[in-house]
Amino acid sequence: MNLLVNGIPDEKVSAFDRGFQYGDGLFETLAVENAEPLLWDRHIARLHSGAVRLGIQAPAAELLQREAREICRGAARGVLKIALTRGISGRGYAPSAKGEPTRTVGLHAWPDYPARYRTHGIAVQFCHTLISRHNRLAGLKHLNRLEQVLARMELKDEYAEGLMHDETGHVVEGTMTNLFVVARDSLITPDLSHSGVEGVMRAVVLEHAAALSIQCDVTRLTREDILAANEVFLTNSLIGLWPVRRIQSREYPVGRITQWIQDAIRDAHIDY
Amino acid sequence: MNLLVNGIPDEKVSAFDRGFQYGDGLFETLAVENAEPLLWDRHIARLHSGAVRLGIQAPAAELLQREAREICRGAARGVLKIALTRGISGRGYAPSAKGEPTRTVGLHAWPDYPARYRTHGIAVQFCHTLISRHNRLAGLKHLNRLEQVLARMELKDEYAEGLMHDETGHVVEGTMTNLFVVARDSLITPDLSHSGVEGVMRAVVLEHAAALSIQCDVTRLTREDILAANEVFLTNSLIGLWPVRRIQSREYPVGRITQWIQDAIRDAHIDY
Repeated sequence: MNLLVNGIPDEKVSAFDRGFQYGDGLFETLAVENAEPLLWDRHIARLHSGAVRLGIQAPAAELLQREAREICRGAARGVLKIALTRGISGRGYAPSAKGEPTRTVGLHAWPDYPARYRTHGIAVQFCHTLISRHNRLAGLKHLNRLEQVLARMELKDEYAEGLMHDETGHVVEGTMTNLFVVARDSLITPDLSHSGVEGVMRAVVLEHAAALSIQCDVTRLTREDILAANEVFLTNSLIGLWPVRRIQSREYPVGRITQWIQDAIRDAHIDY
Repeated sequence: MNLLVNGIPDEKVSAFDRGFQYGDGLFETLAVENAEPLLWDRHIARLHSGAVRLGIQAPAAELLQREAREICRGAARGVLKIALTRGISGRGYAPSAKGEPTRTVGLHAWPDYPARYRTHGIAVQFCHTLISRHNRLAGLKHLNRLEQVLARMELKDEYAEGLMHDETGHVVEGTMTNLFVVARDSLITPDLSHSGVEGVMRAVVLEHAAALSIQCDVTRLTREDILAANEVFLTNSLIGLWPVRRIQSREYPVGRITQWIQDAIRDAHIDY
């Protein structure tokens, strides 16, 4: 059994859990190498700050760490997924006053991305499915992921990822990745104050860029900005960094800044 | 046991179900009186059309009817909740090719709304939590309900419901109800082509209004439009129709058109 539900080996949750009823919760996805979840502190900090924003009581970091250790024991490589929901309640949107949150800690297979994605880059498409703008959900890795599911279902086989834009025409991120472009020797990544997920690897990239004295702007990006950029890359905690070699018919090189950043974040992810 | 999971009495679902992982599914909530789910055909039609839009294979109506009959047997009054998800899959947004959908059919307690809500009306507040606009999710009763949960958590005790507006300032619906206002002897209800749930009771009201030769416009409504209206009411399949007597400090009468409509839809819901 590779899953703990509230600390107990199980593979089921209550059908009355608000995670199942309403997607009322959060999750984290961590790369695991030699039984060690990478970027642990950052992921747990994000889970905690998300829980505060949603008003869900987060379990102690020590408890999660104990459970993660147990579940990752002996794993050479894998994906640790932690979910936290508002727990079981009756029907209706109002949470139960005495509801205890539910946590699941599980180990999944490493996705076996082709190494060439990392070295040679990927092809990407623009998705039709919008990413929605929301005052209270922007930035969170919450469990309401239908948009990403529908966008992912749009992808043709030749595309390893799809970019999603919001109703105002700004491109926010990929279905499972954050977006960076290089233009005029600066790094640019979309502002996530209206939608999107504040990726842990995105934060790592921003810090390394600052350390390398690469100018970085967090702002709005249109499709045209992206098509006009010199370099494009995508990040998340599992893939590390994938250069984008092509968006539909527009081709890009694996550029100098992309390679610098990829080099700089080498320790933060698995060298698959 | 008051729940069937894929036809089998159970109260748990797989933690790998996409309902729990991503809110990747739909639900319906029906009033049950004397073991009979009300407005059955309409709810099942909505579930089927939602499933088509999300690309989930819906179970046959006959199968759902058999399971609903089994679960409602002997219930004088209750709430039938049917959920349909894309089923179990591995981690990642891409659905499994061979994934079978999951259905749950369960009976919940009747919520025991005070009868005065129906006869004398309720007080309502405006919520700060936005309702998001989305090209592919608008109108659907899908399982991504964090917005409604957060809006519901805003409600002060004196308010029985909260109204939600979108980013453009248009009021779309209540957290669990559809909205109607009466202005210049016409009924007006918000257009749901960008967000909101196409309520079954909303459709019933629109049909009865047409039969009563009450002019009805489906359009955009601002807070100011609502505050300037002569009558306001809210609908869903459980409550039927609640007149709104007050929105924050603005008071309304239980008006003539509200009473006509409430009378007209009497057979479509429980007379609690």
